[in-house]
Amino acid sequence: MQNILVLGAGRSATSLINYLKNNAQQQGWNIRLGDFDISLAKSKAQEHPSFTAIQFDILNKIQTREEIGNADLVISMLPAFLHFKVAEVCVDLSKHLVTASYNNPDIDALSDIAKSSNTLILMECGLDPGIDHMTAMAVIDEIKEKGGILQSFKSFTGGLIAPESDNNPWHYKFTWNPRNVVLAGQGAAKFIRNSKYKYIPYHRLFTRLDHIHVKGIGDFEGYPNRDSLSYRKIYGLENIPTLLRGTLRKVGFSEAWNVFVQLGVTDDTYEVEALDQMTNRDFINAFLKYEDTQSVEDKLCDYTKIKRGSETFEKLKWLGIFDKTPLPIQKGSPAMVLQALLEKKLKLEEGDKDMIVMQHQFVYELEGKTHHIDSSIVAYGENEHDTAMAKTVGLPVGIAVKNILNGTIKLRGVHIPTVKELYEPILKELVEHDVSIKETRY
Amino acid sequence: MQNILVLGAGRSATSLINYLKNNAQQQGWNIRLGDFDISLAKSKAQEHPSFTAIQFDILNKIQTREEIGNADLVISMLPAFLHFKVAEVCVDLSKHLVTASYNNPDIDALSDIAKSSNTLILMECGLDPGIDHMTAMAVIDEIKEKGGILQSFKSFTGGLIAPESDNNPWHYKFTWNPRNVVLAGQGAAKFIRNSKYKYIPYHRLFTRLDHIHVKGIGDFEGYPNRDSLSYRKIYGLENIPTLLRGTLRKVGFSEAWNVFVQLGVTDDTYEVEALDQMTNRDFINAFLKYEDTQSVEDKLCDYTKIKRGSETFEKLKWLGIFDKTPLPIQKGSPAMVLQALLEKKLKLEEGDKDMIVMQHQFVYELEGKTHHIDSSIVAYGENEHDTAMAKTVGLPVGIAVKNILNGTIKLRGVHIPTVKELYEPILKELVEHDVSIKETRY
Repeated sequence: MQNILVLGAGRSATSLINYLKNNAQQQGWNIRLGDFDISLAKSKAQEHPSFTAIQFDILNKIQTREEIGNADLVISMLPAFLHFKVAEVCVDLSKHLVTASYNNPDIDALSDIAKSSNTLILMECGLDPGIDHMTAMAVIDEIKEKGGILQSFKSFTGGLIAPESDNNPWHYKFTWNPRNVVLAGQGAAKFIRNSKYKYIPYHRLFTRLDHIHVKGIGDFEGYPNRDSLSYRKIYGLENIPTLLRGTLRKVGFSEAWNVFVQLGVTDDTYEVEALDQMTNRDFINAFLKYEDTQSVEDKLCDYTKIKRGSETFEKLKWLGIFDKTPLPIQKGSPAMVLQALLEKKLKLEEGDKDMIVMQHQFVYELEGKTHHIDSSIVAYGENEHDTAMAKTVGLPVGIAVKNILNGTIKLRGVHIPTVKELYEPILKELVEHDVSIKETRY
Repeated sequence: MQNILVLGAGRSATSLINYLKNNAQQQGWNIRLGDFDISLAKSKAQEHPSFTAIQFDILNKIQTREEIGNADLVISMLPAFLHFKVAEVCVDLSKHLVTASYNNPDIDALSDIAKSSNTLILMECGLDPGIDHMTAMAVIDEIKEKGGILQSFKSFTGGLIAPESDNNPWHYKFTWNPRNVVLAGQGAAKFIRNSKYKYIPYHRLFTRLDHIHVKGIGDFEGYPNRDSLSYRKIYGLENIPTLLRGTLRKVGFSEAWNVFVQLGVTDDTYEVEALDQMTNRDFINAFLKYEDTQSVEDKLCDYTKIKRGSETFEKLKWLGIFDKTPLPIQKGSPAMVLQALLEKKLKLEEGDKDMIVMQHQFVYELEGKTHHIDSSIVAYGENEHDTAMAKTVGLPVGIAVKNILNGTIKLRGVHIPTVKELYEPILKELVEHDVSIKETRY
């Protein structure tokens, strides 16, 4: 028997827990599921014979050492800032650790000690970061192995709503943390195109779109993510002339979102005054010029250069931003008010299915010819709880755990899944869960 | 004899030092001028019989206590973050302190101890903050005393170039810290107009202009400063329907500056890659779309919606931003590169005279009628060293010092010059130095 300690039983762990349940007996796993809220851990463990729910407090150093000491491998689904505390103890006690969160310099600095204590700390093993690395490196390694020279790598990922649940003018619903959606893209976007560095300030981001077609799925638009440049080192593409990572949305989303950016309502740095005396309409008006002869609608259209009756205008109107109803929150930043307004309309409803779309576009040269590979992943959720988002975050973690414990993955030190030993077994098993890559080569 | 300790002998202290020299003998002052760089202190003290130059290190606690202990009053022209260290010792040793820098909550918290130790800590006693408070409160107090109800207070200040030295298409030169000019306005602007709160994000700031006419001086434009709302409390105008503070520029400046904001080149949050391989033109191109069939000039005009050959375009071209010359700095943020480019062209030259323009616009109601007062100050510099900026920062400090030491100002605790006992004697003497208020009432 092997012992797995899972820290954190929140919503993002559901899919992972199901995977562990389905594999526990065959693999010979005992799983201790720890959460600060024991009732949450119990509700997720249910009566599964391989699971034990425990109350767990990461700030309790004695318990942390004891629980990690009794495990063969730890999975941390705790908030990202707590991973270092877990990683330190894991390295000290020679216990493997897997997370779906971003690696950071503090954790990275543990790599040598991890190697010498025969421990693997596997970070960024979810969707994005995670599956993006694996699917990218599968193609990059193949191109490099046959002697191809990469000219361009563009990659777009989006958490979207599946067509059968797409019933609003935004063609979008929140399938993950709404706050992150509202704040997305703040700061400057940096990428490289044809060997020219390119920088886009936040307020122009949603006007600098790529068009993306995913075969059999449809047309999308992509806006650049904040930092594409760092991926040159991560993927070993230091000299690539074009590298861009972006976020995928249905066509038309960005033009409408840009209205919020232009108004300044995605700002999270200050509190709006007197919200308790404001309606939705008053709130929007606070970001428009003072002009008492024009309606709020006309002022907004003039200020952001959109047309009344246009699709973008109808998207905004549908959200209720022009309504004379009291605001949903009485205190907070513009971004917090906007989030509250959006959550009323863009929440997943009962039975809603979400959809993950990821597309990598590679251009490379081989023997004097230019070649293209478009590699796409599309995954669907079951319902508003078992989302594609939760599945694609949880499954890679579960599969990695299986392959570490059965000895297929022998790597030690701090890693992200950019090496073949990691991505090959994970991508292979993901196919069994309907998360598979479709390629177009031309 | 009374002893004054001046901390900091940098450029911003020149005008103050001259004032102290001119008054020392008549007032019976001994002045110790301390700077970390003793040669700088010596060059400013020269051979003046009332002055002693000393090497001074604020981090040397023994010296700090000793020098402050020997003084009757301390003037701190040190960088603003060091004032608290000085203020603490001043309060402890019952020595008055005067600075031209913004007050802050740490210093403000010393007020009760200052009162009980019979000490005055006078902050914000320069131009802006400083003369702005004094000239505003002189009118506000007058209106309140006669029973008027303030409806609107708008205030604009600019550090500009005097007409006789205005020889570039921007009608602007750096008369103060260039870095502050490049970063000006970042964050959201907040004000209130006709009882409606208004918020403007940075990227729209330079399109939301007020037109300002200063009698006998000319036409200007003003863009809103970051936080006008906090002045409601400072000036006792909690219920005023309209309050806006802004920065004054010659007409046309903001449209051209807005091009930099739109491009994103005023961003100070990240380092630009490979600056050492870039020309001015390459740098600007990094903020424009990739498009190899269009010139950088045409791309910029399309992207920022300006016309080739327009005044705005000529302003930009005159700066050399399209030149194929290597960049003036090889490492830094976009804002740092922009600053370096601007400094080459917008520096004060020999004999250049600068100009300070400040205008307050008051609207109030009295006995059922609406009244207006426009109150303006215009001050000119002598040359590129004795600037109007240095004069209007240094003189109020010097005059305050005189009136504290001669007993006219008896106030104790932490204050800014918003009370009559402070602003009356200072404004009165400023007139003798050609810094006087001109009013239009209608």
